[in-house]
Amino acid sequence: MSETITVVGTGLMGSAVAKCFARAGHRVTAWNRTRERMAPLSQSGIVLEPDLPTALRRSRLLFLIVASYEVAQELLQTVTEVLADRVVVNGVTGTGLQAREMAEFISAHGGAYLDAGIMCYPLDIGGPAAMIKFGGHKTAWEQYSRTLLALGGASGYLGSDPALPNVTDAAMAGAFYNVALGAYLEAASFGATVGLKSADLAPIAIHMMGLLGRLLRDEATPAIDRGRYETDQATLDVYIAAVRHWREELLNAGQRCGLMSANLHNLEVARAAGYGGHSIYTQFLTNGVERKAS
Amino acid sequence: MSETITVVGTGLMGSAVAKCFARAGHRVTAWNRTRERMAPLSQSGIVLEPDLPTALRRSRLLFLIVASYEVAQELLQTVTEVLADRVVVNGVTGTGLQAREMAEFISAHGGAYLDAGIMCYPLDIGGPAAMIKFGGHKTAWEQYSRTLLALGGASGYLGSDPALPNVTDAAMAGAFYNVALGAYLEAASFGATVGLKSADLAPIAIHMMGLLGRLLRDEATPAIDRGRYETDQATLDVYIAAVRHWREELLNAGQRCGLMSANLHNLEVARAAGYGGHSIYTQFLTNGVERKAS
Repeated sequence: MSETITVVGTGLMGSAVAKCFARAGHRVTAWNRTRERMAPLSQSGIVLEPDLPTALRRSRLLFLIVASYEVAQELLQTVTEVLADRVVVNGVTGTGLQAREMAEFISAHGGAYLDAGIMCYPLDIGGPAAMIKFGGHKTAWEQYSRTLLALGGASGYLGSDPALPNVTDAAMAGAFYNVALGAYLEAASFGATVGLKSADLAPIAIHMMGLLGRLLRDEATPAIDRGRYETDQATLDVYIAAVRHWREELLNAGQRCGLMSANLHNLEVARAAGYGGHSIYTQFLTNGVERKAS
Repeated sequence: MSETITVVGTGLMGSAVAKCFARAGHRVTAWNRTRERMAPLSQSGIVLEPDLPTALRRSRLLFLIVASYEVAQELLQTVTEVLADRVVVNGVTGTGLQAREMAEFISAHGGAYLDAGIMCYPLDIGGPAAMIKFGGHKTAWEQYSRTLLALGGASGYLGSDPALPNVTDAAMAGAFYNVALGAYLEAASFGATVGLKSADLAPIAIHMMGLLGRLLRDEATPAIDRGRYETDQATLDVYIAAVRHWREELLNAGQRCGLMSANLHNLEVARAAGYGGHSIYTQFLTNGVERKAS
């Protein structure tokens, strides 16, 4: 079904989203504070509207993708009268709390709020590698899910709490992805001490991410979600010995081992909590407020 | 071509290797210190030989896979007279230095040495997901590469330095893989504070590892291997702001953020070295002995 959609903010990601909606046959209006930056969109059949209230009035579905929650809040404060009966999808990155506050603000002015955690690059939008995780107003989601899911092949709805996308983003992009990238760069620095190139190591890292994916799906997930930490594989104690060994080798080669040292510490905290004979997934229990294995 | 191969050590990995060789049509002899542990191999057409010198004499190609370099060294000291003209492939995990010492020892007794870094699980051996990286004696490698590559679809030869497989293993299994796993467990701990399950997060992590693999191959590798750190994407300064933001959110939820804090520190060290306006891959330059961008 063809929708009428207004995209607010036409940076790299906003432009990718607007073009993807247009390609899918929707009637798209775009607005951007700096008018000139919208120009490249005119060739995609998108209406460029310089007046924000006019742009918002044109569509029931509004997709916001500006620099920050502060900017989004500031813009929306000027147009509260047009929010009634609108569905506001917010692709801005922020905290779970900011998303909940934004949801209340939209709701107070008669609109429905969906938060969107965009976990891919602009060039991925519309393709199978694109992932946008939505959360918030369930009825609004049900109404627009087809339109929104077409933005990315790996997208989905996390639940009615509007905080979920931002929490997922901080967890996955922040705590997982960028640490994993940093870990690769520690590995590559060490490899370089014996002449290994990133071209030698990157294919191995890609291969090992395949193994890690299988481990997360088949072993870590059942352990964590069922609270079962017995193991017939390497125990935490055995694993700590291996990690110490690897770390010594890197230290001897003059590496700082920032992430490796922090990882060893995480493992030692789990052991100090009494999990030395359990699986390495017990780190899950001791990375924050302590939880108990069931 | 059918070879005669002796496998020394029949733990989980040694047994997998011996069975894979037998399946490929080679004549395989196995030896293990604890005889009873060899028993399951008798059904695979493998000759179980309780006497080590006899087992070694039977084959020119010897595959060692015991608990440690110390154990390997101790065993080989008792059979130095049978090492002449043998090719010893060592699958034991150790340091680069240990591998170089072992290579000298084997060479001093007239043999050729290949080190093997096994970067997969026993159940993978022989399949496309198996990866064993070899290093050492070039002529021996050329002679047995077909036989050895059949152990794993993603295997290969790193070069004539016998240290390369152990260094690669410490880099990839130690500095990369187990830190990435720890990072997932920090992410999952945080996700649990708003009720997200590992079953929700693992598919996202798997998806993001696809993106990370592409980044490592197409962006990090050319940057590192050419020493080019200019960027038209997010600079280190911009990235640091995002990482601080994510970390604050986790801290506010009561997380310890061990790895995230270490990662932030790695980024800040790169910035302190003057790379704030360059790409995030400059971490590579400041993770150990400082290097300069070319």
